[in-house]
Amino acid sequence: MISSYVHGYDPVESGRLDDQARTLEDLLHHDTRFPTGSRVLEAGCGTGAQTAILARRSPGALITAVDIASASLAAAKQRLHELGLGTVHFRQADCTCLPFADHTFEHVFVCFVLEHLARPEETLLELRRVLKPGGSLTVIEGDHGSFYCYPQTPAAGKVVRCLIDLQAASGGDALIGRRLYPLLVQARFENVRVAPRVVYVDPSRPAWEEGFSRDTFIAMVAGVEKAALADGLIDPATWRRGIDDLTGTIGQGTFHYTFFKALARRPL
Amino acid sequence: MISSYVHGYDPVESGRLDDQARTLEDLLHHDTRFPTGSRVLEAGCGTGAQTAILARRSPGALITAVDIASASLAAAKQRLHELGLGTVHFRQADCTCLPFADHTFEHVFVCFVLEHLARPEETLLELRRVLKPGGSLTVIEGDHGSFYCYPQTPAAGKVVRCLIDLQAASGGDALIGRRLYPLLVQARFENVRVAPRVVYVDPSRPAWEEGFSRDTFIAMVAGVEKAALADGLIDPATWRRGIDDLTGTIGQGTFHYTFFKALARRPL
Repeated sequence: MISSYVHGYDPVESGRLDDQARTLEDLLHHDTRFPTGSRVLEAGCGTGAQTAILARRSPGALITAVDIASASLAAAKQRLHELGLGTVHFRQADCTCLPFADHTFEHVFVCFVLEHLARPEETLLELRRVLKPGGSLTVIEGDHGSFYCYPQTPAAGKVVRCLIDLQAASGGDALIGRRLYPLLVQARFENVRVAPRVVYVDPSRPAWEEGFSRDTFIAMVAGVEKAALADGLIDPATWRRGIDDLTGTIGQGTFHYTFFKALARRPL
Repeated sequence: MISSYVHGYDPVESGRLDDQARTLEDLLHHDTRFPTGSRVLEAGCGTGAQTAILARRSPGALITAVDIASASLAAAKQRLHELGLGTVHFRQADCTCLPFADHTFEHVFVCFVLEHLARPEETLLELRRVLKPGGSLTVIEGDHGSFYCYPQTPAAGKVVRCLIDLQAASGGDALIGRRLYPLLVQARFENVRVAPRVVYVDPSRPAWEEGFSRDTFIAMVAGVEKAALADGLIDPATWRRGIDDLTGTIGQGTFHYTFFKALARRPL
C-alpha cells in the first residue's frame, strides 16, 4: 500500500540508503570534482582532512594546499602520504597574503576555514585575486546556530552556546553559514549559489546517530569543556547536564544541523 | 569552467529552477499522491487550503475532510466548489473522537494540525484506529524553532519567540516538527520515516523572498501582534523593530525554515 502511495521519492527507501551509503563526506562533497589538469588551491588545509577527500575525488587535478601553521601542514603531508595520495603540493602561507601571482588557479576550495577568521571578507578578496577570471570558488561552512534537537533542554542549549561564544571570543563566527551569500557578493564574486546541506538524525538512522550526533557534533562540543569552564561561560554541573542531555537524544530523540555549500565564480 | 566543475548537480541551474517552478506546495506535497479509488481522510482540514491541493493532486481518490469548526468547514466547501474540486466529502468531527468505524481509510493525511493540539498522542491513536492495517499516515508540520536569519538581531528573535510562546500558551507546540518521529513511534506506527523539507532563501531566490519570507513567515508573525502585546510578551517598540529586522533580510540577507514530513504505516 505504501509503495502505491508514494511516487518518485520513497522516504522509507531513501532513509535506508542514507544509512548505508551516505556519509557526511558524501553529503558535503558529492558534487565537488575538479577536472584533470586543472590547478586547484585549497586555502587553509589544516591537518589535511578535506585535502584527502579532494585528492581522492579529483585524482587528476593539480592540488596545492596551504596553511599558516607548519605543524598542521606536516600532519597533512603525512596523512596524504599514508593514504597514498602523494601528489598534493603543500606550502606554508597566510590566506590573507598568498605567495601566488594573480590568476594562478582555476579553482579555489575552502572548507571550515572562514568560521575562524575575524575578517573573512579580506581572505575572500585574496582568494579572488589568485583565481583566474571565470574560475570557481567553493566554500563549505557550518552554522552552529542551525543546531536544535529533541528533547531540547536549557542545558543542551547552553553547552552549544559555549561553542558559539568561544568562537566569537577568538574572533571567529560559528554562525557563518547563513552569511555565505552576502559575504561572497560583497567580495564581488558572481553566480553565487548557496545551498543548505541538512543533517537530520533520528533513531531510524543509527549510522548518523553515531557518526554525526555522537562522534562529530557532541564530541566537538565536549572538546571545549576546559575553555568554557575556564572562561566562566558555564558552571560544571550545567555543563555535565548539557552534554548528558545532548547524548540522551540518541536512540529516542532527534538531532538537527545544517552545513552550507557555496559555489561562485570570479567574473570574466 | 563552472560546467566542467560540477557533475550531476548544478547549484546555479538548480537555484533558477527553484524560483521558476518550486513553490512551497511543491516542496511539501510533490511526493503525496493517493491512488484512484483509495479512501483518504484529511484530519483537521480547516478552511481547505491543503484539501484543495490533495484533491487536485489525487483526482481519483475518495477524500473525506473533517474539521471541528463548522465555519471552517463551510469555507473549505466553498473553496473547493469554486476551484471545481467538488468531489471531497466534508464532515464536522472532532479528531480525538472520529465518527468512523475502525479500519475505514487506506490513507490519513494531517497537515499543520498537530501543532495546535495539547495531546497530539491521543489524536494520533484515534487516526490509527480508523486506518486499515497496512494503511499509511502522512503528517506535515513546521517547527518555528528551526527559523533563523541573517542579519539576526535580538528583536527579530523576540518576535518569533512571541509566536512560539503564544502557541504554547494556547496548549499547542510550535516546535512539533522535531518531535514527529518519537510521536509516531509512541503511537505505535511502524516504518516511521521523517524527512526535513528545508526552505533556504537569499536574494538569488526572489520568488522565495516574496512568497515565503515576506508573504508566509513574516506575515504569520505579524498576525500575532495584538495577542503578543496584549499578553505583555513584548513591548511595541521591540515588536516594530523585530518585524522591520525580519523584513530587512529581504534583498540582502538570508532566511531559514524547516518543515517536516513524516510517513508511517499502521502495522498489518
